[in-house]
Amino acid sequence: MSEMVDIQNERDTRQIEINKVGVKNIKCPLIVMDKKNGSQHTVASINMYVNLPHHFKGTHMSRFIELLNEFKHEKISLKKIQVILQEMKDRLNAEAAHFEIEFPYFIEKKAPVSKAAALMEYTCEFIAEKSDKEKFKVTVTVPVTTVCPCSREISDRGAHNQRSLVTVSVQFNKFIWIEDIIDIVENAASCDLFSLLKRPDEKFVTEKAYDNPMFVEDIVREVSTVLSKDDNITWFTVESENFESIHNHSAYAYIER
Amino acid sequence: MSEMVDIQNERDTRQIEINKVGVKNIKCPLIVMDKKNGSQHTVASINMYVNLPHHFKGTHMSRFIELLNEFKHEKISLKKIQVILQEMKDRLNAEAAHFEIEFPYFIEKKAPVSKAAALMEYTCEFIAEKSDKEKFKVTVTVPVTTVCPCSREISDRGAHNQRSLVTVSVQFNKFIWIEDIIDIVENAASCDLFSLLKRPDEKFVTEKAYDNPMFVEDIVREVSTVLSKDDNITWFTVESENFESIHNHSAYAYIER
Amino acid sequence: MSEMVDIQNERDTRQIEINKVGVKNIKCPLIVMDKKNGSQHTVASINMYVNLPHHFKGTHMSRFIELLNEFKHEKISLKKIQVILQEMKDRLNAEAAHFEIEFPYFIEKKAPVSKAAALMEYTCEFIAEKSDKEKFKVTVTVPVTTVCPCSREISDRGAHNQRSLVTVSVQFNKFIWIEDIIDIVENAASCDLFSLLKRPDEKFVTEKAYDNPMFVEDIVREVSTVLSKDDNITWFTVESENFESIHNHSAYAYIER
Amino acid sequence: MSEMVDIQNERDTRQIEINKVGVKNIKCPLIVMDKKNGSQHTVASINMYVNLPHHFKGTHMSRFIELLNEFKHEKISLKKIQVILQEMKDRLNAEAAHFEIEFPYFIEKKAPVSKAAALMEYTCEFIAEKSDKEKFKVTVTVPVTTVCPCSREISDRGAHNQRSLVTVSVQFNKFIWIEDIIDIVENAASCDLFSLLKRPDEKFVTEKAYDNPMFVEDIVREVSTVLSKDDNITWFTVESENFESIHNHSAYAYIER
Repeated sequence: MSEMVDIQNERDTRQIEINKVGVKNIKCPLIVMDKKNGSQHTVASINMYVNLPHHFKGTHMSRFIELLNEFKHEKISLKKIQVILQEMKDRLNAEAAHFEIEFPYFIEKKAPVSKAAALMEYTCEFIAEKSDKEKFKVTVTVPVTTVCPCSREISDRGAHNQRSLVTVSVQFNKFIWIEDIIDIVENAASCDLFSLLKRPDEKFVTEKAYDNPMFVEDIVREVSTVLSKDDNITWFTVESENFESIHNHSAYAYIER
Repeated sequence: MSEMVDIQNERDTRQIEINKVGVKNIKCPLIVMDKKNGSQHTVASINMYVNLPHHFKGTHMSRFIELLNEFKHEKISLKKIQVILQEMKDRLNAEAAHFEIEFPYFIEKKAPVSKAAALMEYTCEFIAEKSDKEKFKVTVTVPVTTVCPCSREISDRGAHNQRSLVTVSVQFNKFIWIEDIIDIVENAASCDLFSLLKRPDEKFVTEKAYDNPMFVEDIVREVSTVLSKDDNITWFTVESENFESIHNHSAYAYIER
Repeated sequence: MSEMVDIQNERDTRQIEINKVGVKNIKCPLIVMDKKNGSQHTVASINMYVNLPHHFKGTHMSRFIELLNEFKHEKISLKKIQVILQEMKDRLNAEAAHFEIEFPYFIEKKAPVSKAAALMEYTCEFIAEKSDKEKFKVTVTVPVTTVCPCSREISDRGAHNQRSLVTVSVQFNKFIWIEDIIDIVENAASCDLFSLLKRPDEKFVTEKAYDNPMFVEDIVREVSTVLSKDDNITWFTVESENFESIHNHSAYAYIER
Repeated sequence: MSEMVDIQNERDTRQIEINKVGVKNIKCPLIVMDKKNGSQHTVASINMYVNLPHHFKGTHMSRFIELLNEFKHEKISLKKIQVILQEMKDRLNAEAAHFEIEFPYFIEKKAPVSKAAALMEYTCEFIAEKSDKEKFKVTVTVPVTTVCPCSREISDRGAHNQRSLVTVSVQFNKFIWIEDIIDIVENAASCDLFSLLKRPDEKFVTEKAYDNPMFVEDIVREVSTVLSKDDNITWFTVESENFESIHNHSAYAYIER
């Protein structure tokens, strides 16, 4: 076996460095940190890339998978991701390593009146990079309700409302919990969502949402206001897509700071 | 070239007939019939299958594509699909032919008060089969608004509402227009959707929807009631998926008759 | 709270029974059975429906979620699904209950030569129904390689090959492992897939696939042959979609028995 | 009606400008430019955004749709998009306007030996921005075949190959045809794809691909080499995702210049 040609290791003469090369869309069960319970099991979709200097013909794709499998029983934390990135750089002789991971994250939420508890799902993504500098971006997508202020104002009764997806990406100085980002978004909406609502809860959320009408513009501004005040956050984007209940398209707003 | 082995034509000895074999997910620009304008251009996703008797090793996939390309400048009607199915049977020596086509379909709709006009999109699918018998199924997916009757009843103000997707499939004796199926669904909802609404329109649709609260159960029952009375319709299914604005999951109902 | 109107419980006079009504697309972390390790954690997408007799206006959607949350720490087995179905019937006063669950399932596979181990992902679905009769359908989707026999035969060197998705659905008398269905499919392909392959492995799978050319027709026939011989299996479908590497569409075959 | 409150026009005091606000995912039939035939019909998905100064509460979403409907019978060209952007700025009193459009694009391709003709589909996207400066980005996604050089070298027979998606984005000084970008990508692959191939064609493409083995790294470097030499192109990215036929994940490479 040792005599097999290693084509990837051959010299490339085209003088073109590749920014990112690696494996994409690997599905993997993982354990992630959980503010309340310490950890939770989830299933992630993972991308792993390194840069490739111009003189190498190819990277060694199997090394990404080997590395990933070594971490499959460990809790994936910010620190652990730094270890993975360093291992990627070392084993693939690279100057830059990229690790991207997306997963559903579950939080037990109590209904506002009945206090009935059930799990809510949020989508989370970590994008980490290690070269001469380090970069770490956390993205959370939070579904909420939005009631249209215009519809409420001009109508004699009712107001159109809909499910909206608010996506927040942040970079920060020290650790930040997914749960804290979710809180900021849920507090900024007309009302937050629940998996389980009994009738008194349904009355509560209907009236709360009606009393807090929000344009797509309002949502991103409210979230933006809170994030701007937080010294720990060095950069952020907020976007909201409202799946309008009166149209077949979405209303959309986006802020980057 | 004529000496190339035709492996597909070789004899198969496993004694297993294949129900459907062919090409799937071919994208193709097409012209379809339009009740108001005669015809409209769209882009379709197409599947073409035949049965394969147990003694043949394989079918000739390229013949499906050849056939499809011959029809690309013609208007795709029910009759034309019968011609395509017969050609499939003839050219592939098959006893059964299946032709499935899905496409976005556009109708110009006027806003209820301002009469401002804009295009609304609906998803349509034809599934046709020709063997010793003929089968033709038309499916239309119509987005609508639904206001929750329970939320309206128990709340002092407002009512949660959301976009819902109602999907109707029908088999029939004589021709039926896509437009007529859409009308049935839009009349059964709390309110229909529009691409373009000015403020007086928004007031109108908000109040109309509030005055017509519908559970997911009501929608499918209303559509079902109308379809049941139509002698031309020999079989149907109705389903509705409501993208609940207070939950992160859908409410769903389904009737088959 | 007890004075709130229960609209769902009101009488409906349209005389239309609804086949299925309930909640769709609920995301939930779950524990499922694992042939080798006893159990594994995964994240599922779940639908829960009951029938609704013609005289009831609506079903009580929150009861599905309550029920589901009671089972979130238990291992989901065939037996447990029967318990869930019975609970659905009881709590919702229904004659028929439907439980549908789809989840990624992971198996550690060793590379054929180097024996390097890594997780492979498969998509599984259970569709269960309990009315006066019981129904249970297991569906597994298995990615494999297929080498085209025609391309191999007519070409002086090489042969086009591609990733294919083989989907098997079975009904059976007594319990059947997901792992056993996967084995049947992987043995029927030109070669099975692996997450981690070192160079000697890559040589092995390339040559094995080249030595086992398979049309899309061959795959479904091979799987069908094995399933037909198994007395435990009372009904099955097999389909394969080959993402042709020489075309931008798929080749497809389907058998139902 | 004229007395209806215009909430969107009210003053906002949060002092937060919004980068982009508007409508997303509008489906619309359109006519686009075609190098060979002058024009072709397609169906597009469109986003339209403007910036919103900090002192306005909301934008007027219906104006985007009104504007779009005025252009539905005209050929969408680079020049026309500049007109649309200017109209967006004028009618919404905005300093920046964004117009994003994605659509399937069809080109008739002849098979390499038999010369049999059929349509191939490519996905195109234009992203245009007009503020104090103008920006225009064209993205084309081209499906191709890639044969693995390592697999070919180490195996006694055959070589794994697969469908790959190559995505090129460019900014440029003067007009560039979609067709020309597609040519660059198709020439850089192991072999290009066709909708219709007869057996002599299949032999040709199999052998051509086998004779041109390409890593995912090679594809992006080859495309990059050609684009770098073109003075008209001021910026580009190239990425390739190879749907590996021996794995259930993708190989990926990305270059930005």
